[in-house]
Amino acid sequence: MRFTSQTSSDGVSEQLFTLGEIPGVLWTPDGATGTRPLILMGHGGGQHKKAPGILARARRFVADGGFAVVAVDVPAHGDRPKVEEYDRIATANQARVEAGADLAPLIAGFQALVARRTVPEWRAVLDAVQALDHVGAGPVGYWGVSLGCGLGVPFVAAEPRVRAAVLGLGGASASAEAAARITVPVEFLLQWDDERVPRAQGLALFDAFASTEKTLHANPGGHGEIPAFELDSTLRFFARHLG
Amino acid sequence: MRFTSQTSSDGVSEQLFTLGEIPGVLWTPDGATGTRPLILMGHGGGQHKKAPGILARARRFVADGGFAVVAVDVPAHGDRPKVEEYDRIATANQARVEAGADLAPLIAGFQALVARRTVPEWRAVLDAVQALDHVGAGPVGYWGVSLGCGLGVPFVAAEPRVRAAVLGLGGASASAEAAARITVPVEFLLQWDDERVPRAQGLALFDAFASTEKTLHANPGGHGEIPAFELDSTLRFFARHLG
Repeated sequence: MRFTSQTSSDGVSEQLFTLGEIPGVLWTPDGATGTRPLILMGHGGGQHKKAPGILARARRFVADGGFAVVAVDVPAHGDRPKVEEYDRIATANQARVEAGADLAPLIAGFQALVARRTVPEWRAVLDAVQALDHVGAGPVGYWGVSLGCGLGVPFVAAEPRVRAAVLGLGGASASAEAAARITVPVEFLLQWDDERVPRAQGLALFDAFASTEKTLHANPGGHGEIPAFELDSTLRFFARHLG
Repeated sequence: MRFTSQTSSDGVSEQLFTLGEIPGVLWTPDGATGTRPLILMGHGGGQHKKAPGILARARRFVADGGFAVVAVDVPAHGDRPKVEEYDRIATANQARVEAGADLAPLIAGFQALVARRTVPEWRAVLDAVQALDHVGAGPVGYWGVSLGCGLGVPFVAAEPRVRAAVLGLGGASASAEAAARITVPVEFLLQWDDERVPRAQGLALFDAFASTEKTLHANPGGHGEIPAFELDSTLRFFARHLG
C-alpha cells in the first residue's frame, strides 16, 4: 500500500493510495489514532472513487460518525485502464438490447464478471487499511447502490468482516442468489419510480436477503434521486450496528 | 372540554379529559407554556387511548421532541360504550367470512363507517386542544397504524391542519381513495410478513398517496412486530416536518 497524497479539510483527512494496481482513497478524522469502524463504499457504474455521491457521504460518515471510510476505483472506472473484455461485452450487450433482448440478465452477467475481480480486490483493501494504526481491525460496514449494490451483494456475502450493509437500486435477477447468503443487518434503498430497476425486481431483492434485520426504505423518484434525508438514516444505521 | 385528572412522571404531564362524550388524554412537557407542535395518535383495533404502543410513543414524542400529544378512544373502544350497530356489523361480517367472503372489503366498509364518526370527532379534539395555552395553534402531525391507519387516512385527507403523517399496517382496498387526496409528507410502515394485510395491499396503499414526499419503511415480521428503531425514525420525521 503506497500513499500518494494527503490533504485535509473541515476535520476530515483524505489520503490517496494505490494497492498494487488499485487506486483508492481513505478518509479518516483529522489526527485519528487507534481502532475505529471502517466503511467500504462501492461507487456506481460510470462513476469513480471520488464521485460526488461517494465524497459527500464519506465526509459525513467521518465527520459525524468518527468512522474511517475507504473507496477504490472499480476496474475500467476512474483512474484505472479500460478492460478490453468489458468493452467487448458492453458492445455485444448493446447490440443484443437493440435486437430486443432483455437488459436485466445481461447486466446480471456483466456484474457477476466484474465481481469476480472486485470481491478479492476489496478484501485485499480491507486487509491493507485495517493494518493501519489509525484504522485498525474494528467492525466493517459496506455502502453501495446501483453498480455498488451489484458488486456489493457478492462482497458482503463473501466477507465475514462486514457486519452491516446499506445497499439499493439493484434487482433480484442480478443479485438474489448471493443476497440469500447475507445475514447481517441490511438497509435497502429503493426508488419507487426507478427507470432502470423495475420496482418488482427491487422488492424481490429486498425479499431475498436472509438477514433477520433488514429494512426497506422506498421513496418516490428516479434511479438517481435518493432523498437527502436518507443519508441521516444511513449514518444512524451504521452507528447502531458498528458503533 | 373537562379535565378529570392530572399526573406527571419523568418530565411528562398527563391530563385525562372528556370532550362531550369523547374520553381523551393529553401529554405535554411538564411546565410547558406557549405554542408547540401537536401530534394526534389513533390507536389500533381493540385497543384504547392509553394502550402500551400509544403510551410509549406519546411519552417519547413529548420527552424528546417537546411536542404535545393527544389520543382519544375510538367509538366502542376503551372507556366508550358499545355501539350496537358496530356489533351487528361485526357479527354479520364474521358470518360472511366463515361462509368464504373476502375479509378486506368488509374491513374497508367497517372502517369507512367508523371514520364517519371519528373524522369530525378528531377535528373537534384538535379545536379544543389547540385552544389550550400550553398547546396552541402550532403545526399538527398524525400517527396511526392498523385501525389507526384506516381511520387516519380519511382524517389526514380531510384536515388541513395536519402537516405530516406516520401511517402503516393498512391496505389499499380500505384506504386508497382517501390516500389519493393526501399531499403532506407521509412515513408509511409496512410489515413484510403481515398476517392481516397482504403485502401487495400495503404496497398499493403506499403507492396511492399523492404526497411528493413519502417514504416506505418495510421490515420483516408480523402485524404487531414493528421494530423499536422505527420509533427513532418517526420522531425525526415529525421533528423535520413539524419542528
